Amino acid sequence: MELTKDTRFLIIGLGLIGGCYARGLAKHGYHVAAVDQNPESIRYALAEGMIEKGSEIPTPELLGRCDAAVLGLYPAQMAGWIRQYQHLFRPGTLLTDVCGVKSGVVDAVQEALRPDLEFIGCHPMAGRELSGVQNSDERIFEGANFLITPTGRNTPEAIAFARELGRVLGFGRITELDPGQHDELIGFVSQLTHAIAVSLMTCNEDPNLQFVTGDSFRDLTRIARINEELWSELFFSNRERLLREIDSFAGQLGRLRRALAEGDQEGLREMFRKSTRRRAEFDRPAPEENA
Amino acid sequence: MELTKDTRFLIIGLGLIGGCYARGLAKHGYHVAAVDQNPESIRYALAEGMIEKGSEIPTPELLGRCDAAVLGLYPAQMAGWIRQYQHLFRPGTLLTDVCGVKSGVVDAVQEALRPDLEFIGCHPMAGRELSGVQNSDERIFEGANFLITPTGRNTPEAIAFARELGRVLGFGRITELDPGQHDELIGFVSQLTHAIAVSLMTCNEDPNLQFVTGDSFRDLTRIARINEELWSELFFSNRERLLREIDSFAGQLGRLRRALAEGDQEGLREMFRKSTRRRAEFDRPAPEENA
Repeated sequence: MELTKDTRFLIIGLGLIGGCYARGLAKHGYHVAAVDQNPESIRYALAEGMIEKGSEIPTPELLGRCDAAVLGLYPAQMAGWIRQYQHLFRPGTLLTDVCGVKSGVVDAVQEALRPDLEFIGCHPMAGRELSGVQNSDERIFEGANFLITPTGRNTPEAIAFARELGRVLGFGRITELDPGQHDELIGFVSQLTHAIAVSLMTCNEDPNLQFVTGDSFRDLTRIARINEELWSELFFSNRERLLREIDSFAGQLGRLRRALAEGDQEGLREMFRKSTRRRAEFDRPAPEENA
Repeated sequence: MELTKDTRFLIIGLGLIGGCYARGLAKHGYHVAAVDQNPESIRYALAEGMIEKGSEIPTPELLGRCDAAVLGLYPAQMAGWIRQYQHLFRPGTLLTDVCGVKSGVVDAVQEALRPDLEFIGCHPMAGRELSGVQNSDERIFEGANFLITPTGRNTPEAIAFARELGRVLGFGRITELDPGQHDELIGFVSQLTHAIAVSLMTCNEDPNLQFVTGDSFRDLTRIARINEELWSELFFSNRERLLREIDSFAGQLGRLRRALAEGDQEGLREMFRKSTRRRAEFDRPAPEENA
């Protein structure tokens, strides 16, 4: 299946990210419909012109008429939803998702899937500290990273479709990696960072902190406003890897602490120099693409 | 001494923050001169119209003609500079600084100071990941926190001057606290955050990290680009407090780790809820002022 201007998208779950997909796709002239159990979310999306049609339940009309479905669901809901509703899709429909963990999700969904449907895992690496379609803004995708996690069950056409979807939505770099690699990296760059932000935000009870903070503290705790249902699920879905990342980070913080406690000024400066060099790589413009 | 349009400022040390002071004050029509050992910095500031006069060495003309001097020096340089050059100031000159630690600095400077001069400690809570006057931008002060650390040796007039200086430079909330309190809080909101950012940036060697990161990782490591001379000095000047803050944070990260390892989903969710509540306080508009 190719992504063309006639492709009809169906968003399942109009939360923050599902909302960003709907806005981005509608803005580029695609046909977009949505399913969300909250009638308020559907009404809002219709009023905003983000979707052409919507329903509180998965209907044969919506599922049977779409070419591609984006499942904006929590990881633990994915396989169950597929089992319950996949009979409503036409043969050849392409399914994708937005989950922040992949190992348990992609396998379970592909396992449960009808042989005449295809599922390709995607992870748009962007977010906000707010949730709900009302806070969606497709501009958060601009220049962000888009991760695709194909498996042996995916066709080159579905991978090409996912890449094109990432490009249409405005992502910068689009990277393919397998679900295990994905969760390894995400355990570090996304889950460990949230664990750190939450720990930092909750380890000091001083009520006047906000009057003495600079940008550093605000930056490090921005993501400490966190959807507790989604994130506890993400953490537990990737538990072993995240535990390893926490230990690796805690070990490094311990090394810094030791340099400070032992008066090792040169050791501390060397960590600062290394950190400066490493961080500078993140400010370079990204090369074209990384397959 | 009152801050009026005729007040002549002298900036000692035209680095990033000294440069921001010079720009901000010049923009508001004050007379600004500067001393910096690097002739390039002086030439640049003159060409930019940030200063009216400049010198590579502290001269009787510059020091003897200013009403207020802002010492943009490293903490360890402060008292020595005072001892070496204070004879050049006119009686009644007001001195202030921009140091990120206060306990060792304010006492040492006030101890060494001529009785007909006055020194009041200030800490502008703003910065950039770049250094040097060429990267100065007075807009980093807009709405930021300005901390004043008066002691029993300070006059109400000097405190009022410092508050007015903070207002002129565009700071949001201006807070007075004693040098010890200052260092306690700074150990947490500023130094601990830098220790975390550096540890996070240096605990993973994967060369492809930048292709899979989202905003969270970039936010948490922005300050990992760090001036190693200045920051190792700041860390060691506040060592005992920073060690305590690192331990407190590591303890909290350990609690999160335990909830995860033990499958305590509700414990994890409760940390996330607390973190969300605490972080929300930082997004509220600040009340008028906090003395």
